[in-house]
Amino acid sequence: MTPKSIVLVSGGMDSCVAAAIAAQKGESAFLHVNYGQRTEGRELKAFNDIADFYCVKERLSVDISHLRAIGGSALTDRKIEVPKGDLGKSEIPITYVPFRNAHLLAIAISWAEVLGAHEVYIGAVEEDGSGYPDCRREFFDAFEKAASLGTRPGSGISIITPLIKMRKSDIVKKGLALGAPLPLTWSCYRESRLACGECDSCLLRLRGFAEAGVEDPITYRITSKDQETRP
Amino acid sequence: MTPKSIVLVSGGMDSCVAAAIAAQKGESAFLHVNYGQRTEGRELKAFNDIADFYCVKERLSVDISHLRAIGGSALTDRKIEVPKGDLGKSEIPITYVPFRNAHLLAIAISWAEVLGAHEVYIGAVEEDGSGYPDCRREFFDAFEKAASLGTRPGSGISIITPLIKMRKSDIVKKGLALGAPLPLTWSCYRESRLACGECDSCLLRLRGFAEAGVEDPITYRITSKDQETRP
Repeated sequence: MTPKSIVLVSGGMDSCVAAAIAAQKGESAFLHVNYGQRTEGRELKAFNDIADFYCVKERLSVDISHLRAIGGSALTDRKIEVPKGDLGKSEIPITYVPFRNAHLLAIAISWAEVLGAHEVYIGAVEEDGSGYPDCRREFFDAFEKAASLGTRPGSGISIITPLIKMRKSDIVKKGLALGAPLPLTWSCYRESRLACGECDSCLLRLRGFAEAGVEDPITYRITSKDQETRP
Repeated sequence: MTPKSIVLVSGGMDSCVAAAIAAQKGESAFLHVNYGQRTEGRELKAFNDIADFYCVKERLSVDISHLRAIGGSALTDRKIEVPKGDLGKSEIPITYVPFRNAHLLAIAISWAEVLGAHEVYIGAVEEDGSGYPDCRREFFDAFEKAASLGTRPGSGISIITPLIKMRKSDIVKKGLALGAPLPLTWSCYRESRLACGECDSCLLRLRGFAEAGVEDPITYRITSKDQETRP
């Protein structure tokens, strides 16, 4: 059976909730992309756990670790340390992977064209996000136009960003409302055994759960209590 | 020194002439992309020979053979035969690799952003080409817009398609005028030792040289004389 959509599933909370939203409309194919990030092994496990949860038949895991050869980001270059988070700052952070989402979308759209799927879901978040330029809806609109011109006539592939305007706390609530398997997800940029609780991604996630008034089901190495009692 | 441009160099004649045009304006970085096509080894040799000819320091060869896993093209799927060419037909040919140029451009633009280069050259040809939707200038315009929105503000990366409106014979003439190393190039879709002389790519190339009134410097397995004397 032709899947209705391709869902980009990193293994994090946002893509898990995007998958839960796509699942309401029909069968999906799941796409995971390894781009040479530090925590890839743990993310791939989360991807497969979430795919098992949704009984996904069509799965594809793709390696584009040439983004590591290209470098320019703390996520892919081992020489640049992933800093402790600071959600207040406004410039583009060092964890930005140059033009990464274009690579993810190109793969998803090629696969959608071959499978005959007409929707690509990506759990990108604009307002509450990390200031990445390739996480804004205007970028996705431009890419969707490029996709309509660069694929076979009639392919008609839409890029769906169901979380783009949501706050992290709304994403937590939406995931819980849809029964998304949030305990299976992985968000930390730095660690693979216990989430660090300190990087941008952990801080955003923890703030989301706190604002939603719900406890995060995963375990952290540093808890907010530890942070409070530090000198 | 920051290169002025990134040139996508497949190893074929068109990208070689695009490289010759870029070389007039300053130093380039060369990018080669293996997408699981049959003749990859031969194309990579051509890439390195052309890069040596132009004394290129920054070279990157990237593997995106997941396009083979995605399939849908005779160039990447061993189960689909590359047909003998038929330049008269109008539909999109079986050698079309779905949305391939988006992958090539995403890599080139990420690398340009990290290196600080402001131009990406691609030797795509629209009019005299093979009917691929991702070889049209309107696709490149849309992708350039997506790139300007999806990279750091001020990256300002243009996609240059110097051959887009040229006929193959004009490309041959341009290459000869600029002293491009055409004998080092490889165009055949089917063979790696002697060009087949029968696939779309060989037919386009041979027609280009014939119309330019110049002999193609590479050797073919099947010559036009052979074809004339066949039953």
